[in-house]
Amino acid sequence: MGNLQNNQVRLASRPVGIPQANHFKIYQESVKQPTRGQVLVRNIYLSVDLGMRGWVNAAGNYSDPVRIDEVMRAYCSGVVVVSEDSGYDVGDWVVGMFGWQEYVTIDSSQIQRKIDPTGPPLSTSLGVLGLAGLTAYFGLLDCGQPQPGETVVVSTAAGAVGSAVGQIAKIHGCRTVGITGGADKTAQCLEQFGYDACIDYKDGGDLQEKLAHACPAGVDIYFDNTSGAISDAVMQRLNLYSRIIINGTTSINSWEPTPVGPRVERSLLVNRARMQGILVLDYINHFDKGIKALSRWLQSGELVYAEEILDGIEQAPDAIAGLYRGDNHGRRLIRLADTPR
Amino acid sequence: MGNLQNNQVRLASRPVGIPQANHFKIYQESVKQPTRGQVLVRNIYLSVDLGMRGWVNAAGNYSDPVRIDEVMRAYCSGVVVVSEDSGYDVGDWVVGMFGWQEYVTIDSSQIQRKIDPTGPPLSTSLGVLGLAGLTAYFGLLDCGQPQPGETVVVSTAAGAVGSAVGQIAKIHGCRTVGITGGADKTAQCLEQFGYDACIDYKDGGDLQEKLAHACPAGVDIYFDNTSGAISDAVMQRLNLYSRIIINGTTSINSWEPTPVGPRVERSLLVNRARMQGILVLDYINHFDKGIKALSRWLQSGELVYAEEILDGIEQAPDAIAGLYRGDNHGRRLIRLADTPR
Repeated sequence: MGNLQNNQVRLASRPVGIPQANHFKIYQESVKQPTRGQVLVRNIYLSVDLGMRGWVNAAGNYSDPVRIDEVMRAYCSGVVVVSEDSGYDVGDWVVGMFGWQEYVTIDSSQIQRKIDPTGPPLSTSLGVLGLAGLTAYFGLLDCGQPQPGETVVVSTAAGAVGSAVGQIAKIHGCRTVGITGGADKTAQCLEQFGYDACIDYKDGGDLQEKLAHACPAGVDIYFDNTSGAISDAVMQRLNLYSRIIINGTTSINSWEPTPVGPRVERSLLVNRARMQGILVLDYINHFDKGIKALSRWLQSGELVYAEEILDGIEQAPDAIAGLYRGDNHGRRLIRLADTPR
Repeated sequence: MGNLQNNQVRLASRPVGIPQANHFKIYQESVKQPTRGQVLVRNIYLSVDLGMRGWVNAAGNYSDPVRIDEVMRAYCSGVVVVSEDSGYDVGDWVVGMFGWQEYVTIDSSQIQRKIDPTGPPLSTSLGVLGLAGLTAYFGLLDCGQPQPGETVVVSTAAGAVGSAVGQIAKIHGCRTVGITGGADKTAQCLEQFGYDACIDYKDGGDLQEKLAHACPAGVDIYFDNTSGAISDAVMQRLNLYSRIIINGTTSINSWEPTPVGPRVERSLLVNRARMQGILVLDYINHFDKGIKALSRWLQSGELVYAEEILDGIEQAPDAIAGLYRGDNHGRRLIRLADTPR
């Protein structure tokens, strides 16, 4: 190990709102030799998620914020290169919260799960077979309870979560309506992800009118990744007994102070509707079931995914801001090396 | 029937917001002879509900608004005085949507249910054993799923619904915190309805501070009858997996245009909380079960209720506005006659 160098992306300063490239810095340190019960993992893919904003802002979401000078927290998938734990062999594919860095020396208990190297590519463990796919699966099916013929509206419809929601809803016999920004993503929603209709919220038209047109029978399920004006428009088209799944609030730049918007109480009351926040980790004991179902749909071709791979750790610092700019076309990952087979 | 006169309260003009006395007029017409399949009911009690505002405003909630010159829609309980339906005998106690009037000639199918005259007083069929009690029962137990030791916060805590919610929560082992307006209602909440703590939102103190003090372990269930500033304060004290039951929005004077308030998405997301509108009529097939349970608790003394009886139909026109002014102390009913036994 002695001379093996580990490039890391560390938090340099605390962003208010969306973290930009200059909030991070590249840092190099020597790789630590694993001790008993530990493994050394070489990261192959680093994930880039909208939700990572919440990990660096001052107000913690679910956990303490990443500290200044700490390696940026991130889900990663990689390969075991040294093992001091009998449960892991060199060459094993693993996924976990390994951070934005090339190598990580960790207690093996920190590995979330092993990935079958004979199955889909390693990258899917951070996307459609990872937390994104599982969020779609449990959010839509457990909170949303979709019924055949119902209309399901999805915001950030072309994203890793949204695209899976739309397709899983379709598999369950629903009419699917995506909301996304830009002509190319709109086309992707219709052509690749099979949405029955797709609304481009950036094209300047009236969102209410477009929703009315795309959802002639109203909205039964709204899978919300944005909050803000998009949600406000959807809330006006709710059907009786509709379900709103809150998975993200990407359109809101800051929650301090809490921004105001149209009150939802009357829509919920009059429609006997239900609005519910979801965190996929609450379903951790059921992940196997979700991965099995998602893998089956992947194999049958009913479920497809889009990836956008950026090569090299130096791409990481700007990558979250890029998501918020809408730069990406598919699940954004940083690739550090080829996957060894 | 020929000469029997029926005094009615009719809608005289359409209110914007809270209906006041001058939006109604007293009108007299002859009682109609029931024909085959019909009964003539003499109303004994007329109900006065916060929700009746929604029946006279231009934007219908669940049904078309009451028309100008139409008898004011209202749940009432009364006694059959003439029956042309073999299913009903003279003297039967019945409840239904009979309207603010002394007599009503209706198809017997319009009777919601018969009341057992050997049980609790007829007035309870419009309160704790009527839609108010059933709303508390199904809203709290089905939507709220209270667990022993949880903290349940109730707005309009001294009202017909709220007081039942607090007591049913207590029966289920919860800590109960009421929010009400005025020292007398606060005392009533603590002394009569057994709340563990009660907040007087009108006494000028800081609502957030008072909530923090009354709910040291946070809020697990919020039974919301008000919306507005009270709800905004409660939403800041939510626990993980908390449930918010939306039953009314009495603090909002008008929903046109939709008023703004602090966005709820982040609270719901971070707490994986659920916010749900309820309409008791959705549980109509389960009413028997609810009435049985409520009757049992009434009998055991675990459930008590407060009534405020106003005598004479001329009290009706101002009675809804009075509720919004907070004049009442208990379930407000208009009594037209003594209950015949």
